Amino acid sequence: MTNERPDQSPITSPRSERVRRIAALAGRSARRKQERFRVEGPQAVRSLLGEQPGGALDLYLTGRADAEHPELASLATDARVTVHRVDDAVLRAMVREGEGSLVTPQGAIAVARLPQEDPAAARSAIAALHGEGPLTVAVLHEVRDPGNVGTLIRTADAAGADLVILTRTSADPYSPKAVRASVGSLFHLPVVTGAEIDDVLASLAQAGITAAATSGYAELDLFQAELPARIGWLLGNEAHGLDQATLDAAPLAVRIPLAGRAESLNVHTAATVCLFETLRRRGRG
Amino acid sequence: MTNERPDQSPITSPRSERVRRIAALAGRSARRKQERFRVEGPQAVRSLLGEQPGGALDLYLTGRADAEHPELASLATDARVTVHRVDDAVLRAMVREGEGSLVTPQGAIAVARLPQEDPAAARSAIAALHGEGPLTVAVLHEVRDPGNVGTLIRTADAAGADLVILTRTSADPYSPKAVRASVGSLFHLPVVTGAEIDDVLASLAQAGITAAATSGYAELDLFQAELPARIGWLLGNEAHGLDQATLDAAPLAVRIPLAGRAESLNVHTAATVCLFETLRRRGRG
Repeated sequence: MTNERPDQSPITSPRSERVRRIAALAGRSARRKQERFRVEGPQAVRSLLGEQPGGALDLYLTGRADAEHPELASLATDARVTVHRVDDAVLRAMVREGEGSLVTPQGAIAVARLPQEDPAAARSAIAALHGEGPLTVAVLHEVRDPGNVGTLIRTADAAGADLVILTRTSADPYSPKAVRASVGSLFHLPVVTGAEIDDVLASLAQAGITAAATSGYAELDLFQAELPARIGWLLGNEAHGLDQATLDAAPLAVRIPLAGRAESLNVHTAATVCLFETLRRRGRG
Repeated sequence: MTNERPDQSPITSPRSERVRRIAALAGRSARRKQERFRVEGPQAVRSLLGEQPGGALDLYLTGRADAEHPELASLATDARVTVHRVDDAVLRAMVREGEGSLVTPQGAIAVARLPQEDPAAARSAIAALHGEGPLTVAVLHEVRDPGNVGTLIRTADAAGADLVILTRTSADPYSPKAVRASVGSLFHLPVVTGAEIDDVLASLAQAGITAAATSGYAELDLFQAELPARIGWLLGNEAHGLDQATLDAAPLAVRIPLAGRAESLNVHTAATVCLFETLRRRGRG
């Protein structure tokens, strides 16, 4: 019922049904029901249209954004995505997320098809990495904050990760906050959601990828450890890290050396250190 | 006028003047006027009382927090800090920061003396590092988000930095949001505010510390570059990085290699890579 073609009449009212449906995409249940998600801002929209044109459905542009970023409408046309010209008030109404939220879509919003959330997707994505070559997977397990999820995807992309997997209990990378924080990286590399951690660990092992955890109690120092060429970094919850069962199941655990008196690192800091140390070893830079 | 001893009568009303004054410390002007700042949660309060007992003025504890963290009241007593037992409603009223804000001080709040903001402080702090030994300084220039400022202080601490300097145009590290994000690190190493960037660059040079910038356009790859043993990392604004004049003035500029298709890193990710690469080279781990 949500897959009909959008109607082509111009959108002139911030209170129209169409605008309300796009604003509702801030919520996970509306995203699932509509099978859509929202992409805001010229940079993220450009990444969507450039990297995953098949997923894009509609592009909403103000006259000003169209003048400043003419490539957006032309990428959209190439991808057979409908371009709607709207005024500022309409665009702002599409991202109204609750009071106090300061969101500036800078004149460009795309609506895209929501990928399916499916435990089997992680299995297939990992199985597709079967082989011998060096590679890096980032597994986000119980990362609850959408901003952290987006930033971790951006950092994994920057460090050359080949795949990002999110377990079922992590925040949704398709929430507007996560999409914004990923700054387009969500569309640069394969991102799979809805995985079960046991499944992920088994699939990594089958594909010859060593799952690696960070732990303050690990004996091995990250900077001294030999890192396998095919590695899957397990990144845990913001407050309590990885659960004990996952830590126990990981074939490799390393400690990030802390030189000061900080008791711990946040999940994004730890991930950055591990992912860029992996990149440094690989000498890809 | 704000330096009188607090009155010792028990605080029973969430609407009392004292509670209102503590709640007001969410704002920079109130912090300056009262010459106070607020520290929330057992971990941060413990760091304050343990590391900078002279700065602490009052400790507010619920019965439950006192039972769970008996060391807090005893550290406070050692430091001659007045301990006030308050109920949950009073404590919650002290951190009421505007609607939608979810803040849980977990039963413990301290009020501490606000350090002076002063361009001369940075000069003295850097001059005190005069010598030959290896060291790391982190300079936050125009970092606007309080959460980023706190997290950067935490990461600098973890990577063994010896000093954090904030220029006048950076967010206040004594805002509740920054204090929370620093998770105690604000009290672990010297943090100096109110600096002028030109001053900082001149003082670093005088102390034999090489100021280093990161730039996507730098020729030198961070992982290949020789890093000076005495280094001052310049960390810039979230949106536009370091201004051109500061980039031009920095004697060293390096590029963080990006392997994926991400166009850039956020300031915290870039800082993490640089600070931990510095730590790794130093072999302190």
